[in-house]
Amino acid sequence: MKIFAYGIREDELPALAEWKNENPTVAVDYSTGPVTAETAKLAAGADSIVALQESPFTKEAFAALSDLGIKNLSVRNVGTENIDFEAAKEFDFNISNVPVYSPSAVAEYAMIQLSRALRRTKPMDAKVAKHDLRWAPTIGREMRMQTFGVIGTGNIGRQAIKILQGFGAKVIAYDKFQNKDIQAEGLYVDSLDELYAQADAITLHVPGVPENVNMINKDSIAKMKDGVVIVNVSRGNLVNTDDLIAALDSGKVSDVALDVYEGEVGIFNKDWTDKDFSDDRLADLITRDNVYLTPHTAFYTTNAINEMIRQSFDAAVAFAKGEEPTIAIKF
Amino acid sequence: MKIFAYGIREDELPALAEWKNENPTVAVDYSTGPVTAETAKLAAGADSIVALQESPFTKEAFAALSDLGIKNLSVRNVGTENIDFEAAKEFDFNISNVPVYSPSAVAEYAMIQLSRALRRTKPMDAKVAKHDLRWAPTIGREMRMQTFGVIGTGNIGRQAIKILQGFGAKVIAYDKFQNKDIQAEGLYVDSLDELYAQADAITLHVPGVPENVNMINKDSIAKMKDGVVIVNVSRGNLVNTDDLIAALDSGKVSDVALDVYEGEVGIFNKDWTDKDFSDDRLADLITRDNVYLTPHTAFYTTNAINEMIRQSFDAAVAFAKGEEPTIAIKF
Repeated sequence: MKIFAYGIREDELPALAEWKNENPTVAVDYSTGPVTAETAKLAAGADSIVALQESPFTKEAFAALSDLGIKNLSVRNVGTENIDFEAAKEFDFNISNVPVYSPSAVAEYAMIQLSRALRRTKPMDAKVAKHDLRWAPTIGREMRMQTFGVIGTGNIGRQAIKILQGFGAKVIAYDKFQNKDIQAEGLYVDSLDELYAQADAITLHVPGVPENVNMINKDSIAKMKDGVVIVNVSRGNLVNTDDLIAALDSGKVSDVALDVYEGEVGIFNKDWTDKDFSDDRLADLITRDNVYLTPHTAFYTTNAINEMIRQSFDAAVAFAKGEEPTIAIKF
Repeated sequence: MKIFAYGIREDELPALAEWKNENPTVAVDYSTGPVTAETAKLAAGADSIVALQESPFTKEAFAALSDLGIKNLSVRNVGTENIDFEAAKEFDFNISNVPVYSPSAVAEYAMIQLSRALRRTKPMDAKVAKHDLRWAPTIGREMRMQTFGVIGTGNIGRQAIKILQGFGAKVIAYDKFQNKDIQAEGLYVDSLDELYAQADAITLHVPGVPENVNMINKDSIAKMKDGVVIVNVSRGNLVNTDDLIAALDSGKVSDVALDVYEGEVGIFNKDWTDKDFSDDRLADLITRDNVYLTPHTAFYTTNAINEMIRQSFDAAVAFAKGEEPTIAIKF
């Protein structure tokens, strides 16, 4: 059996080597670029292909792969918006994605950035870098003394709650779809307004569906406690960035950790050193010592990469054997 | 009743205001400098004084205070090495300190810096600051996947264990003096060597007593796993800094978080911006992107400051009433 993989990054090589060791009968070859009508030929002779790319999986690419007798595609990530499913159907493709790779990676990162914001490690690090070794005025707040508001209690939100409880903190939660365990613990409040009124810090773990778009805006922020901390590692569209900046300027919001951003597509995961990314608002946020901004890296752990490789390659093998992997997409 | 306080810092003012509100019958006045033979007169008319300073409490200062009829001193910190207890005895002084203000502040900080090191937030923050928004190669490790070695299971070590367990991590522990709860959980290994062999990251929560001095040295590091992370927020003398640097250079130790340092006295909590602090080793450590160095700030939280103010002022009141506060020092 032969699998050809596209878009392999250097940081995926250790996980790929491990998978190959565990699957010695499968021949694996790969390139670093995307699947296109032109690059399809690289996969000639393969039973399945594995890919991860931001650019579209086009009708022309599916046609070229089909001409080579290839009809199995396993993507290594969650998102499938860039797949032309009509074309995939026309050429009779099987497709899988990796819907869950590591909820812990994201939950842990949200809590690490939250705890850093409360301890003000960004201004302290900046002071130390210039040899200002004074404590004051960079005083921190203790996790144990806070009331945390967790919005969204799916896999990631629930993991975040466990971490906060390990710190000995008080947790309140809100979700339209309540989880039985969190109900049993009595953590739910009845409304977002109640959560906003009580929480010293708020972390978002809901999807970016239309009803949640810009849920953090000047109206909801006005209902929060003075000096609240906000964490968003979920979806950029949950936060109205202009309203958030106004609240940072007024001091209403004391600190914020953002791993996602409304305008991140085409900007994050690229090197803009000494270049202009023409988003002055983002550039401004990055310089602020109470803004902990990272380019959608919450998921980015060795464990998550291992899972993305393992699950996608396993699915590619299953497709090649004529089986249906559990992560096959119905379309 | 009147209390005079020395060495009050700006960050202590909110806590002091709160204490004054709760104790309206006590007149409080203060200065920002230390207690000396010269500044003693500032306290004229006071029943007790409260102080926090790095410089010595001298015989001359005690004599000058005694001449004013003052014989009660409450220090707001733990350390009393700078008090001339013989002179204090000669002038019949009562003295208290604040032995415990917030174990959580230190335990939380150790775990925050540890989790940051595993997620490599220092190099990621540096990349973001220069607009390099690429993920690779700054990949992190998940807390949940690690085995953590906690050395010392007093108040702080046990709090650290609870935080690590909240992350879902495996914890092993070592202490010469075992704690019953940690025993019951089955976390103790039989020797430091066993802990060194198994731990992916090691955090120190033991005192800087002679037998622990330089316990982290080239011999103990050689027994650890490759790529181990080491955290020291306890005492600078626990670590042989030269051996640690050699292990960072070789890659044996992947990351380190230090809130204490062998040579910190006279350097930490001072502003050296554009000055030479003539410790090239410290300057080198600060620049490394796998060294998370802070100037003994683990304790520095609003909660800790509140406790230091509250306990010391309460003790000053007790002394003035002729009572013995529980935190009075026997000497």
